[in-house]
Amino acid sequence: MAKAVKEASVRLGASPCELRTRSLTAFADGLKRHKEALFAANREDLARGSSLPAPILGRLKFDEHKLLDVIAGIRNLENLDDPTGKVLFERQLDEGLILSKVTCPIGVIGVIFESRPDALVQILSLCVKSGNGAILKGGSEAKNTNKALFDVLYEAGLSAGLPEYFAALVEDRAGIDELLHCHEDIDLLIPRGSNAFVRYIMENSRIPVMGHADGICHVYVDSDADPDMAVSVILDSKTQYPAACNAAETLLLHRQIAGQVMEKLRKADGPAVEYIEASSQEDFREYLDYKMTVKVVDDVDEAITHINRYGSHHTDCIVTRNETTAGRFQDLVDSAGVYWNASTRFADGFRYGFGAEVGISTGKMPPRGPVGLEGLVTYKYKLKGKGHLVGDYASGKRSFHFADLM
Amino acid sequence: MAKAVKEASVRLGASPCELRTRSLTAFADGLKRHKEALFAANREDLARGSSLPAPILGRLKFDEHKLLDVIAGIRNLENLDDPTGKVLFERQLDEGLILSKVTCPIGVIGVIFESRPDALVQILSLCVKSGNGAILKGGSEAKNTNKALFDVLYEAGLSAGLPEYFAALVEDRAGIDELLHCHEDIDLLIPRGSNAFVRYIMENSRIPVMGHADGICHVYVDSDADPDMAVSVILDSKTQYPAACNAAETLLLHRQIAGQVMEKLRKADGPAVEYIEASSQEDFREYLDYKMTVKVVDDVDEAITHINRYGSHHTDCIVTRNETTAGRFQDLVDSAGVYWNASTRFADGFRYGFGAEVGISTGKMPPRGPVGLEGLVTYKYKLKGKGHLVGDYASGKRSFHFADLM
Repeated sequence: MAKAVKEASVRLGASPCELRTRSLTAFADGLKRHKEALFAANREDLARGSSLPAPILGRLKFDEHKLLDVIAGIRNLENLDDPTGKVLFERQLDEGLILSKVTCPIGVIGVIFESRPDALVQILSLCVKSGNGAILKGGSEAKNTNKALFDVLYEAGLSAGLPEYFAALVEDRAGIDELLHCHEDIDLLIPRGSNAFVRYIMENSRIPVMGHADGICHVYVDSDADPDMAVSVILDSKTQYPAACNAAETLLLHRQIAGQVMEKLRKADGPAVEYIEASSQEDFREYLDYKMTVKVVDDVDEAITHINRYGSHHTDCIVTRNETTAGRFQDLVDSAGVYWNASTRFADGFRYGFGAEVGISTGKMPPRGPVGLEGLVTYKYKLKGKGHLVGDYASGKRSFHFADLM
Repeated sequence: MAKAVKEASVRLGASPCELRTRSLTAFADGLKRHKEALFAANREDLARGSSLPAPILGRLKFDEHKLLDVIAGIRNLENLDDPTGKVLFERQLDEGLILSKVTCPIGVIGVIFESRPDALVQILSLCVKSGNGAILKGGSEAKNTNKALFDVLYEAGLSAGLPEYFAALVEDRAGIDELLHCHEDIDLLIPRGSNAFVRYIMENSRIPVMGHADGICHVYVDSDADPDMAVSVILDSKTQYPAACNAAETLLLHRQIAGQVMEKLRKADGPAVEYIEASSQEDFREYLDYKMTVKVVDDVDEAITHINRYGSHHTDCIVTRNETTAGRFQDLVDSAGVYWNASTRFADGFRYGFGAEVGISTGKMPPRGPVGLEGLVTYKYKLKGKGHLVGDYASGKRSFHFADLM
């Protein structure tokens, strides 16, 4: 099956953007037309999983509200520029010998997601828009919903003109470990789920993984901070949505300002936050809750060292009025996002103006940080000559004349 | 040791380019000053390895000629632009909230190389120029030369002002497997050596690997080709340097032109090439020799399917006068380099005008193809605000006003 998707992905990748966008329209229409069947399939999953914890049931639910959300996401994608076929540079190497670097789809994306069936719709739409084949594996608790959603989208895609096997759904339980070993046919894995789930994927496959396990984000309040700004940035970073990966987990306070900031935090309006004084390495963890570890530091360098050692290279913030200190922090903190006087919660593809978010990657190699649609493309080099030979350059008969054409 | 290099790499990465370039000058001076000691260390390795095959001894040798080569490489690097600190985009998200995407070093590069000690100098210079820490592991047959070269470069770097542990040399034999498991402290592996060696590295580490195992490159001669151009492109692709990864290994001939091209090839001047008619999948292999597998195909689509199935996604060429056919080939062949009427031997960082070559990558994710100095950097997002909070955007109190500033 992976090989069939791989072969289809080549044709999908070279298909006109108009066809891919038309397929998205067909996706939205199909979902609307078959919504009652989709809700019915989802009710089966909900009934079967009735003993599951409430937050999981909430994620598992696929109702009118979730349908409107995924359709809005599809409409948004329809309007985005084609990320493929963009010429990144064009260079003359010599007379008549033109090199261009052009974006193209990555190939086949393996998407592995827990409970949320809406993730299937979102990620398949992203793959189709960017010309990538997709192999989807959902959680067993949502198997009826996933199958119903996939069937609707697959039929809609075929009727719009996409090649057979533009996508495939893995239904059996053993499928996940097989997927992790398909490095010849799957070019990128995108896991969606709990930290433990993402970590398992990362540790058990040689296929590149786009994503993040932990989100241990920091706010460091410098001695030169405006204490009121510090308090509002801390509270927004922690409480605006504590379950998000970009919520702050550890608060680092410069010794000179620590008492004043803590006093203001304790008096602040809004949801109560439990501040836990750091007593061991175990406290430098991800709570995903209204809890925050607090550590007092002597200077910005101690903060930087702490973040690079205990953080997850996701997003970290300094609050200060001092431009030099801010510059040092932004240069030396080794994270995908390094902020100055802004909430860590801004780490998000939509807030960055990307129009869509594929995910957030904490790996060092590109794509890094919040990843938009352009994270689903790579590039190839096209060289156009008139029979040019390397031997002529080696012998000195010809020589290179580099000139950038754009 | 990896942790020490990781910590040093943060300071190295934020150091001014002037310091990094000055260190390269110190490298060149040190090599010249200590050349007799280096040659003596190399003579020990050569004596110990006297029973090794001649090609390995040739690669192992470090003499006046190799010294001049590596110094020329260092001089060239000195003149290249700093790849770090480049602003890739700058965008206003809202008034006073500015996002910028800035290149930065990857962190720590693990370099694992067989026999050639000059690779140590070249890659350490590339790492220093790009602000990356380096952990180097050379082949045991060159251990005296590697140690002598490393000591000279390390001392030169420290005296120029680089931080302690800007680089480290792994000397023991067990070190290689330990390196492959240092995914917390090593961000990228660059293997240099035989295909089997590179494949071993790729299969035994979760750290991203930049490189390529096989180079199974193709020339496809279309029915609309100029037969004389086809013959010269084939011969250059095959014979200009058969041991290179970008040399062509398989020749695909359109049925209508196959006889004519083969006749011209057999009469052509230059080194004799053995043409082997494809009889099984085993023939679609890398010879690195004056041998080439020949397969007749019915059309460009059969050629494309063959290349995508049996190639190594490195570099493939079509010879044709037909622009539509060429376009189809360049769109549908899934390789890092897809050429039209030009020798596959052009796949090289210097020939692409990059000024330096880190390596050639056949992975799908960037960097792909020949990789220049910019392959040793990644990027981070810097966000600068005035106390901006996500809660204000969620509540509708503020809204985003995206505007690209460059």
